[in-house]
Amino acid sequence: MPSEEQLHAAMQGYLDALNRADVEAITSLFADGATIEDPVGTGVHPAAEGLARLVGALPTGSTFTLDTPIRTSHANGAAMAFTVRTAVEGVPVEIHSIDVMQFDEAGLITQMRAYYGPSNLRSGDSIGAA
Amino acid sequence: MPSEEQLHAAMQGYLDALNRADVEAITSLFADGATIEDPVGTGVHPAAEGLARLVGALPTGSTFTLDTPIRTSHANGAAMAFTVRTAVEGVPVEIHSIDVMQFDEAGLITQMRAYYGPSNLRSGDSIGAA
Repeated sequence: MPSEEQLHAAMQGYLDALNRADVEAITSLFADGATIEDPVGTGVHPAAEGLARLVGALPTGSTFTLDTPIRTSHANGAAMAFTVRTAVEGVPVEIHSIDVMQFDEAGLITQMRAYYGPSNLRSGDSIGAA
Repeated sequence: MPSEEQLHAAMQGYLDALNRADVEAITSLFADGATIEDPVGTGVHPAAEGLARLVGALPTGSTFTLDTPIRTSHANGAAMAFTVRTAVEGVPVEIHSIDVMQFDEAGLITQMRAYYGPSNLRSGDSIGAA
């Protein structure tokens, strides 16, 4: 089973690589055959193609910041709450997500599920609103 | 499918009922046959008995506070990061958890999974440390 330190490092490494838009570093955190569902309810996709599409669609300068410390577990799972700050056609946009990851014995991610709905998106003047 | 408003209300209602240590209100949020795993990796239990045990073990005055807004999804799932503040034999203890819930079509919780590991517990002087 991966150690808590490995789970923390993989979760933080995922955010760090997203902040660099480094597809190679991101995909290196995932096991062969891994899946992603981002957000939950929009379909499960192979991680390799899903992550490349996700990063390819990121506007330059998008940032990913933890809201609160990464949570691990007593097994091969971990979760983290973070905020994506980006812009669409010049309008600032925030997405508040919680990503839940499942890991294999080597500490590679086998499943990523991102929890956010329409109410977790903010743009323009609604940023910072309750 | 439950609306986002229903998911938000159920998640907040769960924390509110925990703050009142109101077992009846908590169990009314769960579907018959629901399961809980708190924390992930320590075994899946029927919700009714698991929740009664969880609340029964809570020291008086324990509080449950959201760290960051509740996340929903585009399906029957939601997640939230929160902090439990309690005390064990007079020593303050904090538990940082992310709870992930699955819902049925009526908006009742069918599955709760709590993500926290040993590194997500703080007590005494370690509270507030990184």
